[in-house]
Amino acid sequence: MDTFIQDTPIVFIGAGNLATNLAKAFYRSGFRIIQVYSRTQASAAALAGAVEATYTTEISEVRDDAALYVVSVKDDALIELLPDIVRGRKRGLLVHTAGSIPMNILKDKTERYGVFYPMQTFSKQREVDFKSIPIFVESNSAEDTCLLRAVASILSEKVYEATSEQRRYLHLAAVFTCNFANHMYALAAELLNKHNLPFEVMLPLIDETAEKVHQLTPAQAQTGPAIRFDRNVMDKHLDMLFDEPRFKEVYKLLSESIYELANKNSSANSTTK
Amino acid sequence: MDTFIQDTPIVFIGAGNLATNLAKAFYRSGFRIIQVYSRTQASAAALAGAVEATYTTEISEVRDDAALYVVSVKDDALIELLPDIVRGRKRGLLVHTAGSIPMNILKDKTERYGVFYPMQTFSKQREVDFKSIPIFVESNSAEDTCLLRAVASILSEKVYEATSEQRRYLHLAAVFTCNFANHMYALAAELLNKHNLPFEVMLPLIDETAEKVHQLTPAQAQTGPAIRFDRNVMDKHLDMLFDEPRFKEVYKLLSESIYELANKNSSANSTTK
Repeated sequence: MDTFIQDTPIVFIGAGNLATNLAKAFYRSGFRIIQVYSRTQASAAALAGAVEATYTTEISEVRDDAALYVVSVKDDALIELLPDIVRGRKRGLLVHTAGSIPMNILKDKTERYGVFYPMQTFSKQREVDFKSIPIFVESNSAEDTCLLRAVASILSEKVYEATSEQRRYLHLAAVFTCNFANHMYALAAELLNKHNLPFEVMLPLIDETAEKVHQLTPAQAQTGPAIRFDRNVMDKHLDMLFDEPRFKEVYKLLSESIYELANKNSSANSTTK
Repeated sequence: MDTFIQDTPIVFIGAGNLATNLAKAFYRSGFRIIQVYSRTQASAAALAGAVEATYTTEISEVRDDAALYVVSVKDDALIELLPDIVRGRKRGLLVHTAGSIPMNILKDKTERYGVFYPMQTFSKQREVDFKSIPIFVESNSAEDTCLLRAVASILSEKVYEATSEQRRYLHLAAVFTCNFANHMYALAAELLNKHNLPFEVMLPLIDETAEKVHQLTPAQAQTGPAIRFDRNVMDKHLDMLFDEPRFKEVYKLLSESIYELANKNSSANSTTK
């Protein structure tokens, strides 16, 4: 290549949480984003402004001279938009960013295609440091896989190749570690709020719980009444949740699941407080 | 007081995860632990050695000249041991360390009693920095509450008074944020392991999920297919779990609970990836 990789002209299709965070990371790393498309004018304008790009709300006006098209829209929007995105844009490399969608959805639609999946939780209100985010890439040719690795390596120190099959398990595991873990925080926040206690007191516990699994396996790190099978404490907790049937159901199922997994592994040598 | 508070002679009853971490924190802060009791000789000896104390495995041999007795044993062992612990030791202040046990369990058993509850997850394999751990204290007299606050303040920067009623909700919330969140990591680890993927790739996501709720509420931080009510992705995930009925049950219940809570709060303006 006789140009810097950052000179690759990029078009972003989508301006949601992931698209916004990813486009900004590209921009900060010196890449040249030439255009942003979003159906929603406000989102398109906001992101385009942040990355010094032009924008459009018409898919037919997406430029045809980009080297890389990053399509980061909801899963069903991807299917719907795809024919319009590829029309007349056969030369560029087109990637989607979804954990759960196989690469082959792009097959026969365009010549060069792939996946660029940064595994992280993105909210517009919060900027994340891409350096430590694992990015999983895949494409239909060795050259483009190599190109995607090179591009990803400028954004992050953790770049992996992953097949569509591996990626869908990564995405499923991510739902557990991120979405479901966060929901546990949310249920705790509800409980505390109801009893006029501040959620902040939980932060050191949340941090240590996350920190701990850098050193111990989650099975080793497990503590609490369920793994000790402390019926006494568990029954008291269930009584306290008498007016919250959903919380009670979650408490019961997860306690059973903890105990079951510990017995299956018989590797948990931590006690709970 | 004409002596340093660290000169208070302390006896530890118990040598489990919490007792071990707490006794070491006392020791490192310059407190004088004069004796450790545990039914298990190896545990008693190990902890006593670590904090330069003597030890006993006979409850009748627990010394009667301590100013503070810290009882940190399993909840049912506390009830069982209590009569023997207090016999002949009416002068010292006796505290338990359990989140879920009301202070009044000690009432009429001894004159000076209270609770010293550090809200954290403790494993023997991992030493924690007490400075940031919230410690909740309570006692049956203003003087002893003051003493416990002073003692706790030497170990931690986050000392609160909490009633038994508040403490049991804190403990219940801690089960959600810590034990249940860790179980989500454990289920993810199982899934990844089954498909030959390393758990380490999840760590940046785990860290960011924890980090995020320092800035956003858990409801605002929520992302994932469930909050978007992305049936397509959720159905695919459930299909992938066809041979893991327990995982499937957890996935279903938590997805429903996420969606329900979001609709109740209608405050979730984050999307999921």
